[in-house]
Amino acid sequence: MKEFFKVITIDQAIEFRKQFGAMQNENIPLNASVGRILAQDIRSDIDLPDFPRSIMDGFAVKGASTFGASEGNPAYINVKGTVAMGESSNISVGSGEAVRIATGGMLPEGADSVVMIEHTEAIDETTIEVYRSVAPGQNMVAVGEDIQQGEIALCGGRRIRPQEAGMLAALGSETVTVKKKPTIGIISTGDEIVSVSTVPVHGQIRDINTYTLLGLIQQSGANAITYGIVHDDYQALLDTCTQALAECDMILVSGGSSVGARDFTIDVITAMPDSAILFHGVSISPGKPTILARVQDKAFWGLPGHVVSAMVVFSRIVKPFIEHISGYGDTSAEKTRLTAKLSRSLASAQGRVDYIRIRLTPKDGLLWADPILGKSGLINTMVKADGLIEIGMNTEGLDKGADVEIIPF
Amino acid sequence: MKEFFKVITIDQAIEFRKQFGAMQNENIPLNASVGRILAQDIRSDIDLPDFPRSIMDGFAVKGASTFGASEGNPAYINVKGTVAMGESSNISVGSGEAVRIATGGMLPEGADSVVMIEHTEAIDETTIEVYRSVAPGQNMVAVGEDIQQGEIALCGGRRIRPQEAGMLAALGSETVTVKKKPTIGIISTGDEIVSVSTVPVHGQIRDINTYTLLGLIQQSGANAITYGIVHDDYQALLDTCTQALAECDMILVSGGSSVGARDFTIDVITAMPDSAILFHGVSISPGKPTILARVQDKAFWGLPGHVVSAMVVFSRIVKPFIEHISGYGDTSAEKTRLTAKLSRSLASAQGRVDYIRIRLTPKDGLLWADPILGKSGLINTMVKADGLIEIGMNTEGLDKGADVEIIPF
Repeated sequence: MKEFFKVITIDQAIEFRKQFGAMQNENIPLNASVGRILAQDIRSDIDLPDFPRSIMDGFAVKGASTFGASEGNPAYINVKGTVAMGESSNISVGSGEAVRIATGGMLPEGADSVVMIEHTEAIDETTIEVYRSVAPGQNMVAVGEDIQQGEIALCGGRRIRPQEAGMLAALGSETVTVKKKPTIGIISTGDEIVSVSTVPVHGQIRDINTYTLLGLIQQSGANAITYGIVHDDYQALLDTCTQALAECDMILVSGGSSVGARDFTIDVITAMPDSAILFHGVSISPGKPTILARVQDKAFWGLPGHVVSAMVVFSRIVKPFIEHISGYGDTSAEKTRLTAKLSRSLASAQGRVDYIRIRLTPKDGLLWADPILGKSGLINTMVKADGLIEIGMNTEGLDKGADVEIIPF
Repeated sequence: MKEFFKVITIDQAIEFRKQFGAMQNENIPLNASVGRILAQDIRSDIDLPDFPRSIMDGFAVKGASTFGASEGNPAYINVKGTVAMGESSNISVGSGEAVRIATGGMLPEGADSVVMIEHTEAIDETTIEVYRSVAPGQNMVAVGEDIQQGEIALCGGRRIRPQEAGMLAALGSETVTVKKKPTIGIISTGDEIVSVSTVPVHGQIRDINTYTLLGLIQQSGANAITYGIVHDDYQALLDTCTQALAECDMILVSGGSSVGARDFTIDVITAMPDSAILFHGVSISPGKPTILARVQDKAFWGLPGHVVSAMVVFSRIVKPFIEHISGYGDTSAEKTRLTAKLSRSLASAQGRVDYIRIRLTPKDGLLWADPILGKSGLINTMVKADGLIEIGMNTEGLDKGADVEIIPF
């Protein structure tokens, strides 16, 4: 038997991400920014809006001109003209005066509020009756009410959603400084693995991990380069890893679940210049035989070959590394997880974190998490799954009906 | 004042999606499939795996050869050779015999289980002691255990996740038949709107809706074409709409919150050949003045100009239409929503559905939804928001502490 490595906890494993630096910045067009990570805080250099703006169709007035107005006792107001959209008006509004205004129009000088058209009646061309009073500030947006000059409008490290893109548009940012997307290389290993286009003979199976990892990388906002399958040949694996290292910011080698194959990956890592194994083995299930090395300041992963194990390790350990080098600084998703009730009791070994595939089923007004039990080589169990649940290190198991947090998948 | 239109409910509005047909199918490479909608059910034409496969490093045996084995009373087994990875072995395993096998290897004829290497000790080159019994089927995956020939492996209408891509790889699908992405045209209107690159003068504001809607369209899995800003000119709007209709599968015209501008959009729709207004006004807030027309079998939307209103209408009404024409047939997201406790009481008008922006805050082990109150023209309120909550048609409001479902944004 091979020597035992010291297995570390998942928290210790994730902590190693801090040994890797963040990607550089780049400027991209605003219309390609959604989903990208904002590189720095954005401070507004304008008041938004920078003019008082009507949010109703009606009449701009001094609110005081309408005080006490009602159906039985309307205020009579003199209409001096109309505000053209997109222009500032040179009419000024005094006591007892009004100017016609549409939604989005700029309030003229002297006006401090807008009477809705529904609360007025035209008496003649220049006179209206007003049936309700408006307070100063009503039915309008004040200067700087959306955002004030000098205020931080957006925080760096956040993923740009449609509304952040909208804010950038409002501030006149045709381009935006984001973190470059890391490029992640994917290498599949194993003498038994054949390409998707090959009809396997007995003993062979098609390469699944390249495609699951590719999808996971794309979902995490990174680019991927696939290097296909390398059979168990030291020089071939070293050559492919060397090429990938030159082209990528992080490397995932999947496969090699057997002890011999794991050694093989270790040998190749060790042979590369400026390399160090950071850990070999994490106390999670599935996914224990995970390897992380630092090779020339890049994270180099040996992921388990079983498809479920590789996906779990990616989701729970690799992804935080990708987010870290992507400059992503938001962990709110972890705090705001969906919960469900466990539909059956689950036993678990102490001393490791177990990840259980689950399917969500609403029943009797509650959401139930049904465990999907099955070996970690079965892709179908992941197709059936809506997510994972975690059974902690110091827990012997979970009882039926327990509240569990869902890690979406 | 203009005539009143009959306002319909949000459910009635969404029901209109069935008047629009789904996109055609296309074949795309597997490595570009994640996020796309599978066009049809995929039936497996193979057993997966199609050979019995070891999931441990150890020895393939007949389980019966190990029955009763223990530390004190090991079974002595004769090792006949080694299974090469990716090949079928011509050694057959009889009673009291074993063959060395690594994880992923094909069990040789006669073997029905695998003894883990950890539970054995080598006595000499050809003999091992086995310390634990294994049951037939243990530490291996049986033929068809992942998926059986003829079984439906994937259901049409689902969005392809990394695991569905993995299943397609396992089945040998180099390409996959998905629904074509719809192309959605975005037109901003309003004399007060200027482009992002323009420095607005008093009375003008920059075009925000093009960028929020672009992001929302991208997130919904569709393509977008932006047509920029059309000022309040009947012929210019008709020309742009006609061009967009030729190039897109759906059109969003945003802006025109004022009564006059809404009429303008109606006039242009009516002028286009083969057009019909389906509704004008939905009993939701914000978002009431929404228009839907059918023009030459395409959905043509008039969205409110206020940025929050346009986003809410997109999320609650337009998106189900995009999903419908995209062939998306999964509504499980609606059933599995995060819930939180409302941090303050909210009043609401009966007879309409209210959407309230909220921010999520974990506190005292509970997740709280803090309402963000602010006018629907303020983009900053959406930047601060984590989602929306809904206050139903027949509800006068919600009490502090009420459980509310979060619609993520």
